[in-house]
Amino acid sequence: IETKLPRVGTTIFTVMSQLAAEHSAVNLGQGFPDFEPPQFLQDALARAMREGRNQYAPMTGIAPLRQQIAAKIAALYGRQVDADSDVTVTSGATEAIFAAVHAVVRVGDEVIVLDPCYDSYEPAIDLAGARAVHVPLVAPDFHVDWQRVRDAVSPRTRLLIVNSPHNPTGAVFSAADLDALAALVRDTGILVLSDEVYEHIVFDGAVHQSVLRHAELAERCFVVSSFGKTYHCTGWKLGYCVAPAALSAEFRKVHQYLTFCTFAPAQWALAEMMAHHPEHHLELPAFYREKREGFRALLADTRFELPPVQGAYFQLADYSAISDDDDVTFARWLTTEKGVASIPLSPFYQTPPSGQRLVRFCFAKSDATQQAAAERLRRV
Amino acid sequence: IETKLPRVGTTIFTVMSQLAAEHSAVNLGQGFPDFEPPQFLQDALARAMREGRNQYAPMTGIAPLRQQIAAKIAALYGRQVDADSDVTVTSGATEAIFAAVHAVVRVGDEVIVLDPCYDSYEPAIDLAGARAVHVPLVAPDFHVDWQRVRDAVSPRTRLLIVNSPHNPTGAVFSAADLDALAALVRDTGILVLSDEVYEHIVFDGAVHQSVLRHAELAERCFVVSSFGKTYHCTGWKLGYCVAPAALSAEFRKVHQYLTFCTFAPAQWALAEMMAHHPEHHLELPAFYREKREGFRALLADTRFELPPVQGAYFQLADYSAISDDDDVTFARWLTTEKGVASIPLSPFYQTPPSGQRLVRFCFAKSDATQQAAAERLRRV
Ligand SMILES: CSCCC(=O)C(=O)O
Ligand SMILES: CSCCC(=O)C(=O)O
Repeated sequence: IETKLPRVGTTIFTVMSQLAAEHSAVNLGQGFPDFEPPQFLQDALARAMREGRNQYAPMTGIAPLRQQIAAKIAALYGRQVDADSDVTVTSGATEAIFAAVHAVVRVGDEVIVLDPCYDSYEPAIDLAGARAVHVPLVAPDFHVDWQRVRDAVSPRTRLLIVNSPHNPTGAVFSAADLDALAALVRDTGILVLSDEVYEHIVFDGAVHQSVLRHAELAERCFVVSSFGKTYHCTGWKLGYCVAPAALSAEFRKVHQYLTFCTFAPAQWALAEMMAHHPEHHLELPAFYREKREGFRALLADTRFELPPVQGAYFQLADYSAISDDDDVTFARWLTTEKGVASIPLSPFYQTPPSGQRLVRFCFAKSDATQQAAAERLRRV
Repeated sequence: IETKLPRVGTTIFTVMSQLAAEHSAVNLGQGFPDFEPPQFLQDALARAMREGRNQYAPMTGIAPLRQQIAAKIAALYGRQVDADSDVTVTSGATEAIFAAVHAVVRVGDEVIVLDPCYDSYEPAIDLAGARAVHVPLVAPDFHVDWQRVRDAVSPRTRLLIVNSPHNPTGAVFSAADLDALAALVRDTGILVLSDEVYEHIVFDGAVHQSVLRHAELAERCFVVSSFGKTYHCTGWKLGYCVAPAALSAEFRKVHQYLTFCTFAPAQWALAEMMAHHPEHHLELPAFYREKREGFRALLADTRFELPPVQGAYFQLADYSAISDDDDVTFARWLTTEKGVASIPLSPFYQTPPSGQRLVRFCFAKSDATQQAAAERLRRV
């Protein structure tokens, strides 16, 4: 059988997690917390099962959860979105990204992505019969060069995918970035997919610049977020997409035949959690700042160089002082020989910048895990 | 925004469930039980959460669940499948169907479907840039006319989708159907997607003719099944796809970027359920036979005519003696005026047969629900 996706292998997350397991490495690769979702949320899920929430949820997600999402968006970003027509609950952000792409991107279209970018964007684009056009972010702080993005626009450009806080680099958008993005798509037919799964994890007083803050952008954006990142339950695979009614209608046409709906008891549990603990996501920045500071302190006396982290729960680490190997080779060696798994950056590029020696560590870990990793990394 | 899916509206399941809710109708439309998943399974899920199974599962599904699936297939269908390379856990059968289509169907290909067919097949085919070629099943028993299927084959035919036990008609394949299917695809490049979500619900001593029983077919089939139908938890959205390693590899390339993985605690719970209660699915035929017999008895003195049901949990009902309306009009009227929701058959056809007056009732309901529905239906 001839493959439709010749460039697709196993995701780097699976590769590194498997390697970590085989070599009993501390797994700072794949991005997931090693602590648990709030007890209230777990209890609410068990209760939802007991109360008989075990059959199909509505295709769009249960109304109380969509309402909580809309209320959160109004409170945080000052945008009124309609819980009925604009919000759709999905099987994780991954499904939302795939559905948004398939909703509007046609055979022969082009989609602009900013490298390094999350590894599901391009296969979703490929499967829609379209082509990803890659524009690199600018190191060392991985900001967007909007002129380069403009240069990448063609008459075939249908969609532009942005991501802030950014995975894997931790860069976050400024208000000026939103304005530049708005100027770029103004008077064009270009739509925007804004991957904001780390929306609640920003540091040092920075404000998450959701595209929903920007009236003009909100009109042409699919905004994707994730409960897994916010509630420490990546394995629950719950996310959502917010978009204006006309875009949501197209999104839902795809979603209803992709998965139809999402694990129902968790939807009820999340709706309860959001209603009873609206403070949870407000406390995340402080919670993760402490994790970030702890991790950086633990690594201070290693030979890794640690650029600043503005958002998300990843620390980039420059290993130039340790090795000349490319990042995939280095990350494998660090896992198999030194017992710490990370994620190399080059798989997130179409053309990895030569000489860039960066791996990504996930710091969403207990103190014990961070310490075990640091002990090993200090021996590198 | 111009739609990519001009023929796609809201699924008939959502339409009828919403109408049922608005009119306080007894909902025998959308196929879901109104009773709960086994207590053991619910407890196992709560335990899995407590034990920290809340982060990403492996992309392919957790090993213990894949092993249970493989063991069940060996026991029931005498086929050895490799739990590591051949089995993938999905977000319901719907995701599995979408992923299988996208794994192998290319722009310009043709896919043969047998009408009436489940409403997600064609949109999945459309989104892959391919074309559905419809062959009608033959009433009144909705058997496959294999010569008509052969006549529909063209050099562009890439995939043939079959479904037994059949939704919405309840027809089941015979061993001769498997032989005819094997003969049809022999020496061609045509692959088969076998939707067997009702595999454990067959009646009157009939045996489910899984394509996995057939060595030659198993080599070129994606077999899709669903835990929701077997364990009374349609809202958990857990299913799986079994296919030879080479096909599974392509399937997984799509799955990993469609949803990546599936609600993890339920995977652990289902693995435990299957290990400790292998009798559960063996008891389903008797369990649902009683429901079917109860429902048929309740409807015996109505003006509906009830064809025999060989499998799945749906009863077709011919309303010719009641109305000359088309089935969508009749099903709406029955919901809004008489308080019982059903599913009309014509949305499952490209060309609904003229004069066919059939609606589908779901009999996976408690005695009380069946009685409430019957009371209303007797007044029709
Ligand atoms: C779906 S596994 C990838 C998890 C993740 O978002 C990351 O590690 O970047
Ligand atoms: C995904 S809602 C449809 C449920 C179902 O399989 C049916 O009613 O046929």
